[in-house]
Amino acid sequence: MLTLNMRTKNIIKKPYIKLRKLFRKKKPTGALPGSLIYTGEKTTGEPVINLIKYDTTSCDQIKITEPENLRDVLDKNKINWIDIEGLNNVNLIGEIGKQLELHPLVTEDILNVEQRAKTEDYENYTYIVLRMFHLKGENKEIIPEQLSIILGKNFIATFQEGIEGDSFQKIRARLRENYSVEGKITLDYLLYLLIDSVIDSYFDVLEILGERTESIEEELVNNPDKNTLTSIYTLKREMLFLRKTIWPLREAIVHLERNTKGLISAHTLPYYRDLYDHTINVLDTMETYREMLTSMIDIYLSSFSNKLNETMKYLALISTIFIPMTFIASIYGMNFQYMPELEWLLGYPFALGLMFLVGITFLIIFKKKKWV
Amino acid sequence: MLTLNMRTKNIIKKPYIKLRKLFRKKKPTGALPGSLIYTGEKTTGEPVINLIKYDTTSCDQIKITEPENLRDVLDKNKINWIDIEGLNNVNLIGEIGKQLELHPLVTEDILNVEQRAKTEDYENYTYIVLRMFHLKGENKEIIPEQLSIILGKNFIATFQEGIEGDSFQKIRARLRENYSVEGKITLDYLLYLLIDSVIDSYFDVLEILGERTESIEEELVNNPDKNTLTSIYTLKREMLFLRKTIWPLREAIVHLERNTKGLISAHTLPYYRDLYDHTINVLDTMETYREMLTSMIDIYLSSFSNKLNETMKYLALISTIFIPMTFIASIYGMNFQYMPELEWLLGYPFALGLMFLVGITFLIIFKKKKWV
Amino acid sequence: MLTLNMRTKNIIKKPYIKLRKLFRKKKPTGALPGSLIYTGEKTTGEPVINLIKYDTTSCDQIKITEPENLRDVLDKNKINWIDIEGLNNVNLIGEIGKQLELHPLVTEDILNVEQRAKTEDYENYTYIVLRMFHLKGENKEIIPEQLSIILGKNFIATFQEGIEGDSFQKIRARLRENYSVEGKITLDYLLYLLIDSVIDSYFDVLEILGERTESIEEELVNNPDKNTLTSIYTLKREMLFLRKTIWPLREAIVHLERNTKGLISAHTLPYYRDLYDHTINVLDTMETYREMLTSMIDIYLSSFSNKLNETMKYLALISTIFIPMTFIASIYGMNFQYMPELEWLLGYPFALGLMFLVGITFLIIFKKKKWV
Amino acid sequence: MLTLNMRTKNIIKKPYIKLRKLFRKKKPTGALPGSLIYTGEKTTGEPVINLIKYDTTSCDQIKITEPENLRDVLDKNKINWIDIEGLNNVNLIGEIGKQLELHPLVTEDILNVEQRAKTEDYENYTYIVLRMFHLKGENKEIIPEQLSIILGKNFIATFQEGIEGDSFQKIRARLRENYSVEGKITLDYLLYLLIDSVIDSYFDVLEILGERTESIEEELVNNPDKNTLTSIYTLKREMLFLRKTIWPLREAIVHLERNTKGLISAHTLPYYRDLYDHTINVLDTMETYREMLTSMIDIYLSSFSNKLNETMKYLALISTIFIPMTFIASIYGMNFQYMPELEWLLGYPFALGLMFLVGITFLIIFKKKKWV
Amino acid sequence: MLTLNMRTKNIIKKPYIKLRKLFRKKKPTGALPGSLIYTGEKTTGEPVINLIKYDTTSCDQIKITEPENLRDVLDKNKINWIDIEGLNNVNLIGEIGKQLELHPLVTEDILNVEQRAKTEDYENYTYIVLRMFHLKGENKEIIPEQLSIILGKNFIATFQEGIEGDSFQKIRARLRENYSVEGKITLDYLLYLLIDSVIDSYFDVLEILGERTESIEEELVNNPDKNTLTSIYTLKREMLFLRKTIWPLREAIVHLERNTKGLISAHTLPYYRDLYDHTINVLDTMETYREMLTSMIDIYLSSFSNKLNETMKYLALISTIFIPMTFIASIYGMNFQYMPELEWLLGYPFALGLMFLVGITFLIIFKKKKWV
Repeated sequence: MLTLNMRTKNIIKKPYIKLRKLFRKKKPTGALPGSLIYTGEKTTGEPVINLIKYDTTSCDQIKITEPENLRDVLDKNKINWIDIEGLNNVNLIGEIGKQLELHPLVTEDILNVEQRAKTEDYENYTYIVLRMFHLKGENKEIIPEQLSIILGKNFIATFQEGIEGDSFQKIRARLRENYSVEGKITLDYLLYLLIDSVIDSYFDVLEILGERTESIEEELVNNPDKNTLTSIYTLKREMLFLRKTIWPLREAIVHLERNTKGLISAHTLPYYRDLYDHTINVLDTMETYREMLTSMIDIYLSSFSNKLNETMKYLALISTIFIPMTFIASIYGMNFQYMPELEWLLGYPFALGLMFLVGITFLIIFKKKKWV
Repeated sequence: MLTLNMRTKNIIKKPYIKLRKLFRKKKPTGALPGSLIYTGEKTTGEPVINLIKYDTTSCDQIKITEPENLRDVLDKNKINWIDIEGLNNVNLIGEIGKQLELHPLVTEDILNVEQRAKTEDYENYTYIVLRMFHLKGENKEIIPEQLSIILGKNFIATFQEGIEGDSFQKIRARLRENYSVEGKITLDYLLYLLIDSVIDSYFDVLEILGERTESIEEELVNNPDKNTLTSIYTLKREMLFLRKTIWPLREAIVHLERNTKGLISAHTLPYYRDLYDHTINVLDTMETYREMLTSMIDIYLSSFSNKLNETMKYLALISTIFIPMTFIASIYGMNFQYMPELEWLLGYPFALGLMFLVGITFLIIFKKKKWV
Repeated sequence: MLTLNMRTKNIIKKPYIKLRKLFRKKKPTGALPGSLIYTGEKTTGEPVINLIKYDTTSCDQIKITEPENLRDVLDKNKINWIDIEGLNNVNLIGEIGKQLELHPLVTEDILNVEQRAKTEDYENYTYIVLRMFHLKGENKEIIPEQLSIILGKNFIATFQEGIEGDSFQKIRARLRENYSVEGKITLDYLLYLLIDSVIDSYFDVLEILGERTESIEEELVNNPDKNTLTSIYTLKREMLFLRKTIWPLREAIVHLERNTKGLISAHTLPYYRDLYDHTINVLDTMETYREMLTSMIDIYLSSFSNKLNETMKYLALISTIFIPMTFIASIYGMNFQYMPELEWLLGYPFALGLMFLVGITFLIIFKKKKWV
Repeated sequence: MLTLNMRTKNIIKKPYIKLRKLFRKKKPTGALPGSLIYTGEKTTGEPVINLIKYDTTSCDQIKITEPENLRDVLDKNKINWIDIEGLNNVNLIGEIGKQLELHPLVTEDILNVEQRAKTEDYENYTYIVLRMFHLKGENKEIIPEQLSIILGKNFIATFQEGIEGDSFQKIRARLRENYSVEGKITLDYLLYLLIDSVIDSYFDVLEILGERTESIEEELVNNPDKNTLTSIYTLKREMLFLRKTIWPLREAIVHLERNTKGLISAHTLPYYRDLYDHTINVLDTMETYREMLTSMIDIYLSSFSNKLNETMKYLALISTIFIPMTFIASIYGMNFQYMPELEWLLGYPFALGLMFLVGITFLIIFKKKKWV
Repeated sequence: MLTLNMRTKNIIKKPYIKLRKLFRKKKPTGALPGSLIYTGEKTTGEPVINLIKYDTTSCDQIKITEPENLRDVLDKNKINWIDIEGLNNVNLIGEIGKQLELHPLVTEDILNVEQRAKTEDYENYTYIVLRMFHLKGENKEIIPEQLSIILGKNFIATFQEGIEGDSFQKIRARLRENYSVEGKITLDYLLYLLIDSVIDSYFDVLEILGERTESIEEELVNNPDKNTLTSIYTLKREMLFLRKTIWPLREAIVHLERNTKGLISAHTLPYYRDLYDHTINVLDTMETYREMLTSMIDIYLSSFSNKLNETMKYLALISTIFIPMTFIASIYGMNFQYMPELEWLLGYPFALGLMFLVGITFLIIFKKKKWV
């Protein structure tokens, strides 16, 4: 009994996102709007600010240490990508916000790592917020991380929570390889690359979910035990949270595609349509998994209860065969003075035979009724 | 049995909003439209009317005692915030309605504390009604309170039911600190502050619900008993009511955002978009909780019934082992004259051995079938 | 067994709207369109026609006996309210239809008392049909009645089925008190008063449903028996019918509010918005009740079956304790010649003690496993 | 056992529409589009073609035998109604299609009797297809039949599958009575009459469904047996098919009402609005029935399983009372030499009394616990 | 036990689409957008490229072996249909993409055989992707295959995965027969023929699903066993996947019908409307099947558990009849010295009679209560 609970607890507690973590309040109650409060996990390292400036002639990567000068460092004639990793220094993020002339609410949202995915147009920039996933360790624990993107006139700024290190290695490598190709890595295409890498991480998560669903399916058929239902439940719960996270992204991408600010060129637009397709695909698949899990609960409940009931039936069968036999033995255990059978020479074998006959008869009847 | 019911009753009855209280009729049947009837809880104190008048040069707070003069006290060149706490004096509220030139239906709705959240545009003002929540006592009982807001050309009037005292302390403090900053606390920004503080209270409620959901989840895994299902049910019911309350707020804020009367300046608009985001976030989270609770019922039903069935199986196993053994004893209890075994010197140990053998055999079979 | 069925039957049969009554065919099959057939309950009395003519100077109430002259009796310079109570005289209703120049389909619909609520614009008038509810007797049986309203240029005609007598006493009284107030009771405001009184009756019904839901909830916790489920079912069924009735009213009121024919003045429009609010409120509440009832079924099924299973468990416990004890007694009932214990002086108390020990041991084991 | 299955089979197999019949493929796979293939039931008789030509002066009915001349027989100055009964002669239908200048796809759809209800506008005509129902025999078996209607400039053509004979007797009779009334039976009104008679047949079907639902409801309360669930299931299945059939009709009528081709005069339009109302009414009612059936399954499962469990409980009670009594008897059946009670004069009555006492005690305990 | 699992496994594993196969990631994680990677099953054969060029005077079929010259081989004055069978040569497909001037994303999507069905307009062509189904072997295993279609100004290119060989034999034959008929097989009509043949394959799949559903239904009534539920589950799961595949096709066809690029002539448009109808029909039918399967689970659970419970009841009845009889035998097995019955001459028959009487009495009681 104890081990069961221990195991079940482990399944529920360990590889899953904590409830309280996902649904924190946006800020301490009563905190006034506009206060800058970082609501994510406290990490020790300082935020790292990387700036890449490039045009077709050059591509320079600079580490920024004095955010107060950020505005001056940007090159108006080049494309600037400012990547901030780590949000735990509130003042620094506030300073960057000021330098980029962000609306106070945007800076607040960047620090507030429980945002719903959304795209918001401001006068001089567009703010995009979404969540990427990392798979950590052997258990492939799913770690969510918020990514805020500011798309300005000639710059992109990305704010990573920085929990699992840098996620954009490959994109940087690509940039360095291709910056010189005319019209290749435009600002809007760079944005596409960033979002695409996030959606890629959803497919990784989907694969994990698919594997878990399949393994539960197999368990269900071969060897359902008390933990199977708990596994189904926790998987379903995880699915609920992921869907809740990914669902609003659909709308955010539609908003980008509609392109009200003219930030995306006709040439890059098909790529955004592609992002939309992938998001829908992820959501459809997740929905299908969810429906499968719901059906599995029915199967589980039935097969588990049937297994138990079958046992009960066999036990009842055994009792029911022995009870009439015992009855006969009790008869010849009575102490009447005048019981002719008792004095028969073959009385004892006769009684044994009678019991045997009764037992066999019942067994045959049960067999015929297909109860055995 | 009795204690069970007592406890269950407590769980259902105490920390939850009463059904009858939430779904009262809008007014006594047959009461004609336009009659002013306060439908909330009777409180003893008189309504308190506070007026704050401010511009960038000054900020004065006045206690109004003669509502007949309210119109004269307002300063057309300043921003006026009239805050009414307590609605139990129908005549006084009626008088204020007249002073602010409200439509009779609006005054009726202010007194009618079971309104659905909504925004209604009238010629000279906009009427917003919503519900805020207070957490009371150790049980963190959820107390709903209706808040009506009138947004006029140069004033805001707020009507609190006043059940849990004043809710706007912090906003007043903020006002006093910032009134002198040019263009900071405009009329539309003040409205935002008010609604934002209400939605903040929803996040508090969400946290309570999340905690309760988690604690039931834990109970489910470790130690489900007869009350677990009742807890799930009452929590689900509470969720239903809260959703019913919060759902229409979404539409009310969309209406404000659409800004058909031009009351909200371009500068403040992002703040309203933010309100919308938060409302959606609350509703999404609630929906996720609701789906989790539904799944929990399945788990509960299964795990509880399995626990019982396991007990039954073990009891049946014990009986099934003893019944054949008793059968053998009965055989040797028969009174036949010619039963060779009875006269054997080792007949008794033989019989005991036989019984023991039969018992062990059954036990081994059951073990092999994994029934034990 | 018999009494159970009797009671259950009563619950299902008595206070609820009959299925066949609610879903009658629109007319005898094959009857051609345009035939006037009254499909409601036959009542004996003749329809009563009341005409109220009023302007700011006078208000006269006339009983009309010759409907052929109806058109002549109407006063073009006043507001005319023709109220018909009872529809069982088909010819008379047909005549009134002709006098008011109604489309044949409208007259047909008035007589056809199973209409869905709707608003239909015709060239010279608007046709509104909805259903009001009466609560009858101690059981508060819910009696539906169809109300058809014709809103013409200078008249309103109301057609009541007349099952529960006159429903508009209060409105008439109000009219008589206020007719002289300039611009108070305009034609569109009168229409509002009529529809408002109907929606008021929905709140009465809601209160009944709320009370029943609460009483079932209490029964569920304290003393669920075989009838509880039937009560839940019948209440849910009643809810289904009421929702089906009220749902289309929403659309009908939206249509009025959209005011395509310009029948409603800007001044009265907020009142219609209020009607809409109330209708939504009724529907929301009903939906919440319905979801509660669905959850209750789960609770019922679980708690009832658990109660039964608990009983079974206790019975099985008793048997399981006595079976091994009986086994020991059977052993010492065997007739072997050489059974040392039988000849012991304290053999009997020893055997009794052994049995007692075995019984107690099992009891302790069961206690430890928390089965008792 | 055998009889149960026989009965259940009958219920499932007989009065219901066959699955394979309703969901046939549109045509043999690989058949190229445009091939004319009749997919309905083969009937032996030849199609019958009736032509009615009328204006206000005359109304002639002609039996057409040479479809090649159909175009010449039509009178451009009159209204022509061509009614084809039976579709099993593919060439003949093809010829009529050519004469009426139908698009090849329309002719294909007419022969393809598994169409979804729809309205399609072509240049010179509108094609409407829907399904009518006949109730056949004592069992009131529901027989579907496809009806295709072509509404041309001055003609209507109706194509009946002809399974259940002519369905438009009454309409023809009406036509003959009223053709001379100016502007009464216009082309659009004739179309209305045809569709109305189809929807009338839906109300007949609804009544049958209502009766069956009620009779199952009664069976559920009074005497649920193993077939009750099967009945609920088959009724629900039938409902699913009917809804699938009727649902698209809603859209088809909306399309007609929108009147994009100007075929329907302002005068006839209200009649089409009426058709729409009736369709919605049928669908609403069906939905309500479906929800009732879903709830019934819960009740059935619970009441049936409770009945069985009650039986088990009574059986267990009996056993549990006799087992301790048997135990006492076993004690006094032991063969100890020194058992004082055995030698008592009143030992036997004492033992009997003891057993009786134990039995009664248990019975009283069970009564107190309300288990009996 | 073992055989059960073996069989169940077979049912789940064999005739169904593998989960992992259907939901693969769009490409290896981290692969950069624009990389050409074929994600389908590796087949050994080389892709086959067929070109058919036709106008009303001639129709030539050419096998293309050097895709580099594809552009030159196309005849601008004729209609060109390039059919590619097999996608496993990534470079070749890339080359064809370049020749047809396809957007890199389109070439990527063609190779990526897990696309959602969609229609995308590009400047010079429209890209349509959908999935067709083949039924393979005796088991009629459902094999999905992706089909990409490029509709250019004067050409159509079709990319088949080529798993099950060529699917367009019949269309080619038709083309060869009809190419000379003026205006018959236009480019848009050819596209229609292609899509129509795909949807035809859906009807084949539907028929298989219908047959399986019916056979499970029959099994459910006649002889439900442990595998029935698994069959229902796997069929439901298959349905989920098929629906997920077919659902987006609806939108894709609507997009074609809307005809924003003017590719489809007024004459061919009705054919596309027909495609839409067929798609809806497939989806409706699938939905109906799905709801039937859901209901079947309820029936199964109930009937299976009832069958088991009935067995238990009969076993309990037998025990309950013998237990009181054994009790009587035990009484007369007691060893009291003074037991008058023991010395009666007819004591033994009396006891036997008594037992018989008790047994019969219980049997009669059980019969009366309808437990037997």
